[in-house]
Amino acid sequence: MQIQTPDWVKHAVFYQIFPDRFAKSQTLRKRLHHHDRWEDWHELPTLQGYKGGDLWGVIEKLDYIQDLGINAIYFTPIFQSASNHRYHTHDYYQVDPMLGGNAAFQEFLDESHRRDIKVVLDGVFNHSSRGFFFFHDVLENGPHSPWVDWFKVHDWPVNAYNGEYPANYEGWDGNRALPVFNHDNPEVREYIMEIAEYWIKLGVDGWRLDVPFEIKTPGFWQEFRDRVKAVNPEAYIVGEVWGDSREWLDGTQFDGVMNYLFTGPTIAFVAGDRVDLDQVQGRDYKPFPPLFAAEYAEKIQALLALYDWQIQLTQLNLLASHDTARLLSIAGSDRPSVELATLVLLTFPGAPSIYYGDEVGLPGALDPDSRRGFPSEADWDYKIFECHRQLIALRHAHPALRTGDYKVLHAEGTVYIFARSLGDDNLVIAVNAGTTPAKLTLTQSDLKPQSKLLYGSADLQWVDQHLELHLPERSGCVLG
Amino acid sequence: MQIQTPDWVKHAVFYQIFPDRFAKSQTLRKRLHHHDRWEDWHELPTLQGYKGGDLWGVIEKLDYIQDLGINAIYFTPIFQSASNHRYHTHDYYQVDPMLGGNAAFQEFLDESHRRDIKVVLDGVFNHSSRGFFFFHDVLENGPHSPWVDWFKVHDWPVNAYNGEYPANYEGWDGNRALPVFNHDNPEVREYIMEIAEYWIKLGVDGWRLDVPFEIKTPGFWQEFRDRVKAVNPEAYIVGEVWGDSREWLDGTQFDGVMNYLFTGPTIAFVAGDRVDLDQVQGRDYKPFPPLFAAEYAEKIQALLALYDWQIQLTQLNLLASHDTARLLSIAGSDRPSVELATLVLLTFPGAPSIYYGDEVGLPGALDPDSRRGFPSEADWDYKIFECHRQLIALRHAHPALRTGDYKVLHAEGTVYIFARSLGDDNLVIAVNAGTTPAKLTLTQSDLKPQSKLLYGSADLQWVDQHLELHLPERSGCVLG
Repeated sequence: MQIQTPDWVKHAVFYQIFPDRFAKSQTLRKRLHHHDRWEDWHELPTLQGYKGGDLWGVIEKLDYIQDLGINAIYFTPIFQSASNHRYHTHDYYQVDPMLGGNAAFQEFLDESHRRDIKVVLDGVFNHSSRGFFFFHDVLENGPHSPWVDWFKVHDWPVNAYNGEYPANYEGWDGNRALPVFNHDNPEVREYIMEIAEYWIKLGVDGWRLDVPFEIKTPGFWQEFRDRVKAVNPEAYIVGEVWGDSREWLDGTQFDGVMNYLFTGPTIAFVAGDRVDLDQVQGRDYKPFPPLFAAEYAEKIQALLALYDWQIQLTQLNLLASHDTARLLSIAGSDRPSVELATLVLLTFPGAPSIYYGDEVGLPGALDPDSRRGFPSEADWDYKIFECHRQLIALRHAHPALRTGDYKVLHAEGTVYIFARSLGDDNLVIAVNAGTTPAKLTLTQSDLKPQSKLLYGSADLQWVDQHLELHLPERSGCVLG
Repeated sequence: MQIQTPDWVKHAVFYQIFPDRFAKSQTLRKRLHHHDRWEDWHELPTLQGYKGGDLWGVIEKLDYIQDLGINAIYFTPIFQSASNHRYHTHDYYQVDPMLGGNAAFQEFLDESHRRDIKVVLDGVFNHSSRGFFFFHDVLENGPHSPWVDWFKVHDWPVNAYNGEYPANYEGWDGNRALPVFNHDNPEVREYIMEIAEYWIKLGVDGWRLDVPFEIKTPGFWQEFRDRVKAVNPEAYIVGEVWGDSREWLDGTQFDGVMNYLFTGPTIAFVAGDRVDLDQVQGRDYKPFPPLFAAEYAEKIQALLALYDWQIQLTQLNLLASHDTARLLSIAGSDRPSVELATLVLLTFPGAPSIYYGDEVGLPGALDPDSRRGFPSEADWDYKIFECHRQLIALRHAHPALRTGDYKVLHAEGTVYIFARSLGDDNLVIAVNAGTTPAKLTLTQSDLKPQSKLLYGSADLQWVDQHLELHLPERSGCVLG
């Protein structure tokens, strides 16, 4: 089978937005709810508080997003939900009223598409919430409910809110707030398929799928792909699978996964022993122990060998997300770790995804801290911002960085060098993760003639047919 | 102030439908839910079970409804709700999926309007349900919820499902399943007003308002009327108020109420000591003690004196509803009680409302029994059906029965006679509730010349300028 993935994703730079925290509309909008019960935007977030970000606010920041070079947005859930992260869906057909509802989303979608920015939504189809209509009916009517078979009820009564008794139904990860669907019920399956179709028909460009590995009903994700692609063959389907994802990346299910197999080793290499283990342990990715360049190369080569190249080009690569601590905090506020990782991210095959705020150096430990309000400009780290701006522009300027071959040129000690090439477009990316300067020699064959510094602060000298590269400590560069 | 009420209501005969119990579509429809968990249609209903009636089923029965002479339908709630009666609203913008959802409702509305049948919905705006999004958020997030002020929370934690602890919020009638809105909150007020406007804009012809007396926020119902009438000046607004309703019938709020002040005395007169007190005690209307004609006349005159005549003509008159036992059961299965009451109902000023099934003699004690599945034809009482059919036709044929003056001619012992007249259209209605035949004499001035029997089984003889009327026991008639 020839694996097909959406072409636009290969050229996309994603921005991941956590809608309650990115932007609150500054202009007067007709809203259901006013300010008094929102948490202060700049205070540290709490697990249950809302800060009141909305989609109108995102619309107002589209200039910023576009100037940064972003051409795709991945939203964590936007559907009506009684949680600030909105992973407890209450209604799959309604955008949360606090975000502005369906009307604001339509306005957002139109304005994004006018700017050639794609929009991917988060589909939480493994479980719902206790207030989700069909589960609510089970709560209200017990065994009389016509919807009992939509969930996995073990016994009566179900105790959805009373922790003193067994929940008596399956909740995701044992959490009774997240009743798991019975996907083996054809009614449930059809219900979910129709949601997926509905939003794609409305113009949404893809689905990021929450914990899709939990759904074990045979053929479920194959049908999902078939039905979504029947509406829009270029729709992007990306699963939240943290590890080896071959099971889902055979071309019949997802176009890619959230590529934590890239994240872990990259952080382990560039941040090394700066990594704060409290911020990464117990998670499903491994930014530790520290890696030398050779070990890093091995992991990256293994990753690139794992899936078809068409899949590699549409992986969703990331350094952080709402599910992790932010890299700056993982690395003990070490800015070079962020800069080096960002360099590697933006030059890797697959679509880079930048977690809102990472581009301006927003710190954040694990949830809820990793979901802070987007900072005021006064609090931005402009060096990190500039790094992002330049690298995104470079990626857009060079097809090789998007769809070119990937070849490791050098991986020793703390220095990792690789080439990306496509036709005449040949680039070399070099990273020195060490704390001392490094001096490298590159041969003519690795480089195109008259290669010069496209990004970074290295010193270059052509000596005969060789290039002598002086890389300062904790720095990286792009040559081309 | 000149009180204005919708003209069409004065000419309407309503049919009250409890959607889960009236009709289940017989044709193949795309539905979310299939049969296995519905209660058997013909078994006695339970408090929590669903029988699976739907709006497609109502569409399929519009021929029947229209042939009966009905030109307006009042639905008990149809919005998404986790209760078979749907008074626990989960979403005010969605028709319940089991009824066929918004798509089925639109199809129903179009088809009804094509037949000149009006459609009135039940608005439950005093309280919502525990799964209603905004209350659900309070359950999930406690004091962190931005929607706390939408309800009347007294203290934390709220115990919505745990009866061992105080609910800590106001529920309607002390019922924690029905959290009461805080109507003093302008956000809530606006939210409800927009719902009211939304459905009227969609083409719905009016609102029946559930327990509107509970909402004490000054100006609430005045604004409701203003906003609804701004969308459609002919929209009908009828409140569920069981007693003296002058407070709401001043022309600035409702066009009428559910006229239980008509129901109670009418049953007490026609059914008399047949009334089963267990089926009527503790309710907010008084079909007991038995009334003689003179007492009945007094109560009816008092009722007609209570409100403006324009209001009288748009009252919603009824003999039974989902909130009462059915008349046939109240009267110990006595068919003449039903026939006599139906005669009085169909000849009274104001819009008669027939509770689905009453027209075919469906029995039913108090809830849940009063909400049985509509019976198969084999179980119909065709005499009661014929009585309804004839009286509805008579009402449509005679403007006097709809908007004519009402004048009591005779009220003695068990015999009650009144006239309705409008221009040349003059009718006399006579009821003998007693168990022996009655002989009455009517003068020329009460009748139009050559009056004859339009309905019923009386014997008429003109003697000089008088009409001698022989009314069999337990019978009534219409002359004109």
